[in-house]
Amino acid sequence: MAVKRSWVLKQDAGDGRMKEISDYIYEGALAFLKAEYRLLTFFVIGASIALAVVSFIVPTTHILIVVAFIFGAFFSALAGNMGMKIATKTNVRTTQAARTSLPQALKVSFGGGTVMGLGVAGLAVLGLTAAFILLFQYFMNGTWSSTDDMTIVLETLAGFSLGAESIALFARVGGGIYTKAADVGADLVGKVEAGIPEDDPRNPATIADNVGDNVGDVAGMGADLFGSYVATVLAAMVLGNYVIRDMGGAIDDAFNGIGPILLPMTIAGFGILFSVIGTMLVKIKSNDAKEKEVQGALNIGNWVSIGLTLIACYVLVIYMLPETMKMEFFGEGLKDISSIRVFYATVIGLVVGGVISSITEYYTGLGTKPVLAIVQKSSTGAGTNVIAGLATGMISTFPTVLVFAAAIWSSYALAGFYGVALAASAMMATTAMQLAIDAFGPIADNAGGIAEMSEQDPIVRERTDILDSVGNTTAATGKGFAIASAALTSLALFAAYVTFTGIDGINIFKAPVLAMLFVGGMIPVVFSALAMNSVGKAAMDMVYEVRRQFKEIPGIMEGTGKPDYAKCVDISTKAALREMMLPGILTIGFPIAIVLLGKLVYGSDNQLIAEMLGGYMAGVTVSGVLWAIFQNNAGGAWDNAKKSFEAGVEINGEMTYKGSDAHKAAITGDTVGDPFKDTSGPSMNILIKLTCLIGLVIAPILGGHELESGVAKEEIKVEMTSDSEDVAQAVINYTTIKNDKSVKEEITFKGTREEVEAQLKAFEKTTVNGDDVDIKVIVDKVEIGK
Amino acid sequence: MAVKRSWVLKQDAGDGRMKEISDYIYEGALAFLKAEYRLLTFFVIGASIALAVVSFIVPTTHILIVVAFIFGAFFSALAGNMGMKIATKTNVRTTQAARTSLPQALKVSFGGGTVMGLGVAGLAVLGLTAAFILLFQYFMNGTWSSTDDMTIVLETLAGFSLGAESIALFARVGGGIYTKAADVGADLVGKVEAGIPEDDPRNPATIADNVGDNVGDVAGMGADLFGSYVATVLAAMVLGNYVIRDMGGAIDDAFNGIGPILLPMTIAGFGILFSVIGTMLVKIKSNDAKEKEVQGALNIGNWVSIGLTLIACYVLVIYMLPETMKMEFFGEGLKDISSIRVFYATVIGLVVGGVISSITEYYTGLGTKPVLAIVQKSSTGAGTNVIAGLATGMISTFPTVLVFAAAIWSSYALAGFYGVALAASAMMATTAMQLAIDAFGPIADNAGGIAEMSEQDPIVRERTDILDSVGNTTAATGKGFAIASAALTSLALFAAYVTFTGIDGINIFKAPVLAMLFVGGMIPVVFSALAMNSVGKAAMDMVYEVRRQFKEIPGIMEGTGKPDYAKCVDISTKAALREMMLPGILTIGFPIAIVLLGKLVYGSDNQLIAEMLGGYMAGVTVSGVLWAIFQNNAGGAWDNAKKSFEAGVEINGEMTYKGSDAHKAAITGDTVGDPFKDTSGPSMNILIKLTCLIGLVIAPILGGHELESGVAKEEIKVEMTSDSEDVAQAVINYTTIKNDKSVKEEITFKGTREEVEAQLKAFEKTTVNGDDVDIKVIVDKVEIGK
Repeated sequence: MAVKRSWVLKQDAGDGRMKEISDYIYEGALAFLKAEYRLLTFFVIGASIALAVVSFIVPTTHILIVVAFIFGAFFSALAGNMGMKIATKTNVRTTQAARTSLPQALKVSFGGGTVMGLGVAGLAVLGLTAAFILLFQYFMNGTWSSTDDMTIVLETLAGFSLGAESIALFARVGGGIYTKAADVGADLVGKVEAGIPEDDPRNPATIADNVGDNVGDVAGMGADLFGSYVATVLAAMVLGNYVIRDMGGAIDDAFNGIGPILLPMTIAGFGILFSVIGTMLVKIKSNDAKEKEVQGALNIGNWVSIGLTLIACYVLVIYMLPETMKMEFFGEGLKDISSIRVFYATVIGLVVGGVISSITEYYTGLGTKPVLAIVQKSSTGAGTNVIAGLATGMISTFPTVLVFAAAIWSSYALAGFYGVALAASAMMATTAMQLAIDAFGPIADNAGGIAEMSEQDPIVRERTDILDSVGNTTAATGKGFAIASAALTSLALFAAYVTFTGIDGINIFKAPVLAMLFVGGMIPVVFSALAMNSVGKAAMDMVYEVRRQFKEIPGIMEGTGKPDYAKCVDISTKAALREMMLPGILTIGFPIAIVLLGKLVYGSDNQLIAEMLGGYMAGVTVSGVLWAIFQNNAGGAWDNAKKSFEAGVEINGEMTYKGSDAHKAAITGDTVGDPFKDTSGPSMNILIKLTCLIGLVIAPILGGHELESGVAKEEIKVEMTSDSEDVAQAVINYTTIKNDKSVKEEITFKGTREEVEAQLKAFEKTTVNGDDVDIKVIVDKVEIGK
Repeated sequence: MAVKRSWVLKQDAGDGRMKEISDYIYEGALAFLKAEYRLLTFFVIGASIALAVVSFIVPTTHILIVVAFIFGAFFSALAGNMGMKIATKTNVRTTQAARTSLPQALKVSFGGGTVMGLGVAGLAVLGLTAAFILLFQYFMNGTWSSTDDMTIVLETLAGFSLGAESIALFARVGGGIYTKAADVGADLVGKVEAGIPEDDPRNPATIADNVGDNVGDVAGMGADLFGSYVATVLAAMVLGNYVIRDMGGAIDDAFNGIGPILLPMTIAGFGILFSVIGTMLVKIKSNDAKEKEVQGALNIGNWVSIGLTLIACYVLVIYMLPETMKMEFFGEGLKDISSIRVFYATVIGLVVGGVISSITEYYTGLGTKPVLAIVQKSSTGAGTNVIAGLATGMISTFPTVLVFAAAIWSSYALAGFYGVALAASAMMATTAMQLAIDAFGPIADNAGGIAEMSEQDPIVRERTDILDSVGNTTAATGKGFAIASAALTSLALFAAYVTFTGIDGINIFKAPVLAMLFVGGMIPVVFSALAMNSVGKAAMDMVYEVRRQFKEIPGIMEGTGKPDYAKCVDISTKAALREMMLPGILTIGFPIAIVLLGKLVYGSDNQLIAEMLGGYMAGVTVSGVLWAIFQNNAGGAWDNAKKSFEAGVEINGEMTYKGSDAHKAAITGDTVGDPFKDTSGPSMNILIKLTCLIGLVIAPILGGHELESGVAKEEIKVEMTSDSEDVAQAVINYTTIKNDKSVKEEITFKGTREEVEAQLKAFEKTTVNGDDVDIKVIVDKVEIGK
């Protein structure tokens, strides 16, 4: 990364006006990040205190979780910061490179993307590994002792992931609001009211618009994938630990007996190496290349890195896992699973990532059937265009969810939830490459903006437009990738949650659990609405400010007066920070509220409360995945339906171009789609991951570590109703919970009634007042007979 | 009903042009119904054959279910037919009445609604009661024998409900497509292109538009509520049967021991009586009355009927239920429940219906904060208007779902799922009144259309407009009521499903179940998209036809040429029938596909397949409720935001009226909202109910009736590992499944090792080769000790 970074920074950064504009963008972006981090510092401090209090009250939560949390938050922020700095340095260099040739422009812009991708993935692996090694040393002295000890290590490590994901939430939502507020604001007044083109330097909001591309698409996406990456690996590690438990609590392998736990991290590490190789292959030769060639170059790099990762998965799985593992399948008992099945699960992960990206492309790409259908519907007005776009987004959930359901089912059938988690890990392994591809789009977009604002030769803009156009497609497929990975990650976290809490699954036939499933399903919908409304509000602020400047600054339209760019940047920044609070509170507050409500109603029945929270998590995940697909794809389809008019489209036999009524209708659709695809849609990923992570952090509190509070006594009620005093028998069915594992046991007492009564009393006493306070006894059934 | 009907028909039906137009509407509506019923006859025949085949293959499904199915379908169609006939007869009479006074117009239009309401509710109670009595006689000779026998009665009765709901699906979807295709088509060409007002007789689609109001809002809504009504009562009866089971299999009461089963039907019956009283109170005196007074009159009637029903619930619950019942609470065992708690559950049902209607009104009513916010956003164009409308619909899920979750939770806590079902029953009891209120809206709308087309004095239109405006509000709250009742009904059906199949709940921690939860969540989204696209396609057909007529019929715009109304009616009819097929297939096909897929993968593991189907049902219900609320409320809010411009609204300090740019933006929003609120949104109710009903009909197939295939033997494995040969003991835990009930039992054998072994062998033999093949024994655990 450092090598690539110094290469990029060595490139010519242009001169005069170009540099000036680039500096504005750089400063605007940095100003936002600074303001954001200042605010988030308070959040991190507050959350740390809360976590510390919890760790004092709940004996199974260790205070180190606070350190891990801060560590995770810091790394996430660092990754975002690094990515954004390089992106805002690369944009102007891309413009400059585009003055010479297209291949060079691609090389520079993709170089910037590569730095970002490697930086984020590298920091994630570095941070997580370091945290794991430290915790492993601290709690277990670096050698395997027991599953329970490892559980504590991983529960504490969950703090790292929680920190990363919390920052990601705010970065994604804040960035999303920022970018769309600036975009919509700039368009509404600039394009529509004043009639000046996009990125015109006379538009005061244009710098804010370009800053937005960076804080939303670069920093937001980076933080999002950083969070996914960490959460996926963590969840796979947790489930690896349970594989060891199912195999008898210890295995003998060349990795200190923790091969299944180390595997996901190792795959991630190799994935970075192969991403480096992949990025090296992304280049074009011809200066006359078009979108197709550029896309092709990206595809080659991508497929090579995925192919290499696939091979690595095979080798690593065979090398690091025991040849045959035992895994507990819910309701089916222990099964023997050969390691090759885990490899098949990773194949599923890689395939699913690709398939879902392809489906996304089909529904949102330029010239595809669904997008052309929207174009056709534009001829009868904005209303039919909007309906068609909504319907396209909705229909697109059909294949996506089916593929996704098949992936869950098959990877689970192959290797249990460990298989699901490793499918996600394999998919995420090439995150560095994915991010490089994703990040180069906004860089090219910015480069085009700079070319426009600094009034370069049109050929420069043409070249950056080719890159930008490819970037739009990769942005859409990248969103497909992000949601697929987020969904699988959430499932893995969900499985980890169930094992952490030690519950018998999540039964939605229990009314409180079902009620929470409904509540969970509602959250993504409301979250999306809040995000959309925030964009609306922030955009309004921007509109009024731009209107004011057009009115009050003399000579602004003639190019003699200088617009106050900083003021617009400031408005976007403040609005984004203000508006991201409510969705954040909703996300973090609801799981906590459910636990509190559960405690209020059911007191110490932690199992039921854990199931309620599980139902909530499932509701958020199912609904969140649906709304993410719906919003991302509808937004993408509208965007490209609008873009189709640039080259001209045939509607009812007539060629129709920019400026036609149909095009205006398509612009309306795009306006609706903007917050869909850039604010609320992508936020869904983080919403579902963060919800599941919060559940995971709460899990130990709800887990089976309760006896020390002495509740067992109340739950033993022994009655005796035998008719005969002489020949009595009592059969007690009870459940012991030892750490996380619950075992059903049975004791039979026989003798005269008196004897049996005495035995029962003694039994009651032993379990409650005995030394082994770690055992909780719940009597399921007492049967009295002769 | 007959009295009211003859009174309505005796009213003056006007003359000449009025009568002519009314006849067109009447014939158009009837033509649609005839074509629809012709098509549905094939469906009913096909479905009957399928059901008959199933009943031959599966011994627990009785052939009479086919009869019940046809019976239910017939009654549902009859109810729709009856309602539509009276509605299309009442419209012109309302126009005529409006020529004299507003009170008279209300009396006539509401009279028509009353006939419809009483007809639908009456047919539902009549049909269900008759079917129940016949089946009760046939299977049980009219006296209580056992829960199992009653289960067969109710399983067969489910066929009645399935028939009703299947017809409802097609009526709702077909009607919804019809009405919106005609509406959008008429508006796009007539209002927008040709610039003639709504309901102008020169517009060829205007009759189709008025027919649409009847087939969509009257027949569709009637079939929907007919289905809900029947399904609710059925589900409550099923759960009542399980109350008797939990009380030991028989109770001694004044109702042949089936009080808990009869209660829901009785509440429904009294609800009709009180609805009659309520409808009598709906009247206004002053000819100068405005919307407020009319709404007030409706409210009085509504509240009185609800209040009386509440009192009836108290009396009936106390009178018909045992003072203390035993109910099995999942995971908590048997509990004593006093009958007053069931009454509280009915109170919850009545309150929730009211609260959800109020929430709906808040988000969609004229002059409310959310609607005014949409109005404000219209000033910056159609894009921001659409975003605001979508966000409003989405936000409205927040309070609705919370209320709803609280209702599930609390009514379950009070009296288990029987409580949930009775909450739904109480809510549905006043269906007759609700339908009367709902149906009078489209009648008034039609009356206005007739007034316009027959060129009456403007005062006539003014009066019908007042009624129409109130009708719009009641339509929105009626949708709130419909979704609340559908949701509670689905839950009750869901509970009935779990008890029918005898599964241990639905555990979403099992990957196949979770996968189906995802698939289920996706269905309502795709269903909505299909419905929306259908409207788009059908509307396009209409647009082309209207354009053709304007072009080809000479003198049509001058009023000298006569438009070909019938052709437009025909287009709408054909399009609706063609387009309703795919959503129908999706709804009916998916549950069946899941069972087949499950059978393919898991063979005879019916329990898991039943859980998978249960997960699917839960997914459809949760997602369907969300999308229903979202779409209905967004559509309602857009509609009233547009309407707000008629009286003028203040935007940024300026009064803005019809014809302004902001108004045009609001019209776009309304166009998007039309299919939302009238096609896809209301279809969600039926989708979720029908899905749960199909599950219920499939349930006996997946239930625990497996022994005849002789699988038990393999599942008994007895090992003996005692050290001492002399004092051995074997404890066998096993589950017997007798019909649908699974009981955990335990046997202990003691003696010398030889003796115990012999006993074990004998035990094994008895259960497998014994005569009582109806018992399935699954050995859970064998413990051997001294």
